[in-house]
Amino acid sequence: MTFIEALKHRWQQANSLVCVGLDPEPAKFPAKFTNDPDAIFAFCRDIADATAEYVCCFKPQIAHFAAHGAESALERLIAHIHATHPGIPVILDAKRGDIGSTAQQYAAEAFDRYQADAVTANPYLGRDSVQPFLNRADKGVVILCRTSNAGAGDLQDLSIHADGNTRPLYQHVAEKVAGEWNGHGNCALVVGATWPAQLREVRAIVGEMPFLVPGVGAQGGDVEAVVKNARTTDGTGLVVSSSRAILYASGGDDYADAAAHAARTLRDQINRYR
Amino acid sequence: MTFIEALKHRWQQANSLVCVGLDPEPAKFPAKFTNDPDAIFAFCRDIADATAEYVCCFKPQIAHFAAHGAESALERLIAHIHATHPGIPVILDAKRGDIGSTAQQYAAEAFDRYQADAVTANPYLGRDSVQPFLNRADKGVVILCRTSNAGAGDLQDLSIHADGNTRPLYQHVAEKVAGEWNGHGNCALVVGATWPAQLREVRAIVGEMPFLVPGVGAQGGDVEAVVKNARTTDGTGLVVSSSRAILYASGGDDYADAAAHAARTLRDQINRYR
Repeated sequence: MTFIEALKHRWQQANSLVCVGLDPEPAKFPAKFTNDPDAIFAFCRDIADATAEYVCCFKPQIAHFAAHGAESALERLIAHIHATHPGIPVILDAKRGDIGSTAQQYAAEAFDRYQADAVTANPYLGRDSVQPFLNRADKGVVILCRTSNAGAGDLQDLSIHADGNTRPLYQHVAEKVAGEWNGHGNCALVVGATWPAQLREVRAIVGEMPFLVPGVGAQGGDVEAVVKNARTTDGTGLVVSSSRAILYASGGDDYADAAAHAARTLRDQINRYR
Repeated sequence: MTFIEALKHRWQQANSLVCVGLDPEPAKFPAKFTNDPDAIFAFCRDIADATAEYVCCFKPQIAHFAAHGAESALERLIAHIHATHPGIPVILDAKRGDIGSTAQQYAAEAFDRYQADAVTANPYLGRDSVQPFLNRADKGVVILCRTSNAGAGDLQDLSIHADGNTRPLYQHVAEKVAGEWNGHGNCALVVGATWPAQLREVRAIVGEMPFLVPGVGAQGGDVEAVVKNARTTDGTGLVVSSSRAILYASGGDDYADAAAHAARTLRDQINRYR
């Protein structure tokens, strides 16, 4: 089953568009992890196990492991999710982008070493830099389009003139991905929850392509506006990612229950507007 | 000493603008490394030791380590370079870019974990995504402007209209970096050797800012055109990076001598046109 097929299956099976972003920050872990040398793995595993029922995807963010030298924890975490929660795809959030021969190495890192089902990628270097990811037809390639941060517009909103049209850069990226890069049907786009109008515009360009939507929760994106502007005709099409608001819902011993509650609450909130 | 100061010092001291890109590909290693479990470290160390005399910088490319789970080799390699060849800055080629809180983690990865002196960064997410790197005033931030690959133009050449001007996106990036992002004076730009005309245009925009120039050697960039179009008024300003043509100059037991010869030859070739 390809990443996109698995995602569609899971949207239905779990009746959820929620993605839990696994961004471990040891300083925020409950006290019980203080002297645990494998705290990053153990905390993320507990969160994954507690929230699996309510999610369509998990999305570990690689910098949060790499900064602590915790590559082994990331490998074991993804293996644990595959073994314990089969059918839930894992998106490795790495935002990679480099020239072709190096992009091959990044594809090997994400798909062969970490066994991720999809990876996030940056389009600035052009199509050939993404091609080694695109060539893996069973894997997903989630390309940055309009990100959720305050500075996103610095480049992404620039007015560009190409192919006889004038429009913001992020819309050009959306059209290139949908029209030219998606030959294997394995592309998705990152469009931030903090920009509901842009979500609607990108949806109009790319049809039913899945969106990874960061920015609800701690970043302030409005769930109703996200769902109403960005869902596909069947009420899916979205991977709504929340990290901090779920992972650190409680700093106490009830962290796993609190995370489960936060994930379920977000799922239900989303489903109200689908 | 900051990265930029160290680089300027090294340009003079070594009379060299050459950077050796450390992109280990075990399949290309000489036969003596076949059964060496630490081959990635050992090969790169030998190359660094053999070429140090002829370089202004080393530039390990992180994907070539990560694909093989060789983070420890990368840590030890950079530590070895700092200990054995003090004064030669190390640029970690990682092309990172993410929202602010995650960019903090990437800055920790590059500068604290790996002890790199500079890191390459992708500008697509905007200034706030680069800010955690920029804030490290002693470290260098080498921002992608016009890359060396064939698909570079897909986004970077798009004609954009901003601030009353119409120009290619890469020129807009150059102007933003020089005019707004370089408050600590720690920025540099990636401009590929395969585009001599663009090198000249970017040099006109950013004054004396250092360029990291990949694309000579295996990628076919012309040394004379690079130097004449992109040097600063004092005949420096360039970090001309070559990887495969130096690392794999010989596949035999003379790999280190062959690498040294290739690095010296490139240095002399560059110096002819400075």
